[in-house]
Amino acid sequence: MSEQLPVSERSQLRRIPSRASYDRALAHAILDVGLICHVGFATGTDVFVIPMAYARQGDQLLLHGSVASRLAKSLAGGVRLSVCVTLMDGLVLARSVFEHSMNYRSVVCFGHATAITDPTFKAAALRDLTEHLIPGRWEDARQPNTREIQATTVLAMPLQEISIKTRAGPPEDLQKDMELPYWAGVLPLQLRTAAAIPDPALAAHTPLPSYVSDYARPGQRSRL
Amino acid sequence: MSEQLPVSERSQLRRIPSRASYDRALAHAILDVGLICHVGFATGTDVFVIPMAYARQGDQLLLHGSVASRLAKSLAGGVRLSVCVTLMDGLVLARSVFEHSMNYRSVVCFGHATAITDPTFKAAALRDLTEHLIPGRWEDARQPNTREIQATTVLAMPLQEISIKTRAGPPEDLQKDMELPYWAGVLPLQLRTAAAIPDPALAAHTPLPSYVSDYARPGQRSRL
Repeated sequence: MSEQLPVSERSQLRRIPSRASYDRALAHAILDVGLICHVGFATGTDVFVIPMAYARQGDQLLLHGSVASRLAKSLAGGVRLSVCVTLMDGLVLARSVFEHSMNYRSVVCFGHATAITDPTFKAAALRDLTEHLIPGRWEDARQPNTREIQATTVLAMPLQEISIKTRAGPPEDLQKDMELPYWAGVLPLQLRTAAAIPDPALAAHTPLPSYVSDYARPGQRSRL
Repeated sequence: MSEQLPVSERSQLRRIPSRASYDRALAHAILDVGLICHVGFATGTDVFVIPMAYARQGDQLLLHGSVASRLAKSLAGGVRLSVCVTLMDGLVLARSVFEHSMNYRSVVCFGHATAITDPTFKAAALRDLTEHLIPGRWEDARQPNTREIQATTVLAMPLQEISIKTRAGPPEDLQKDMELPYWAGVLPLQLRTAAAIPDPALAAHTPLPSYVSDYARPGQRSRL
């Protein structure tokens, strides 16, 4: 059995406990498939939710943004935040509207983020952020110089206080509805790539790298 | 020119204003394509971000959850919230790591939600929530009865305080990097459906409805 993370007041899922988990390996697997996260944080009386790029680096989540952004400033200031990664796996069509659902895997992480300031660690974090989105790209692009590294805020957040929620499988109708004539089942959803579009300014005959032509998230098929 | 929504202190986007918009029609178009939103709200010192189903009903956003959920209780209590819908359109590969980006369309809506309690409005909202995810399904399933309507919290939030952020098109490298030998361009992303999976308990010969076999989000192709 995989390691279970401790459950806190705010990370405890109360609705439909059968869909809840606090398993470290499952959380990591979901985070490794997702492309973007949604970061929530409060400033005074306002709350913000913003989409951001992220990566997992061991037991911490990396986030990054421009040094100039309000978001990066607020987060680096140690504000409490909540980060959610959601994978949509399918639409669940039950015979009754009430039992309609979605198949999904989501992770919510609670805590606060601290800025990575050491240039070596920062460069390693930028490599991991790049490789999370496009494995193989870091070694096949111009890597950031000192000025670019300075212009980027990289934040790290421990993956310690986590809730996982998942649903999978067919619809669950009431017994009395099972004889109704409506179609029931799951319509699977996947985020997929289409054919790559070269930059109009790209030099003719520049080969398309295999990490682009064969791009796939972990555990998924590669192409449309 | 389409109607522009008023800009508030919290909805004003400061980073890269060329990617910002407050256009009502554009916000509605993005919301109509998305499947789920991420809802952020604060309770005391904690902030939560949760994935939820939603629908647009005219100039308001509908959210729904179980009456029993902590989330629905908090939101119906009038807590301030922020709702974000993000469409991922592509990975943008520049010649330099620093200029890598994503093509996306996102809407963030600020405000607070109120519970819809009138049974007729509530049923209409449940219809819109169902039709948002699966157009055609409401009339082809058992519609909710009084008990089921009572067991669901439906929230409405005005679409008045909104930020839109979008990026589209090719990478934007520095002039000095244009001659580097790396491939550059966009790898398009789309959320697509795969072949529907019938419920194992489905009666043989139940036809697959065309709204499932031809499922597509507005403006997108239908199948993998």
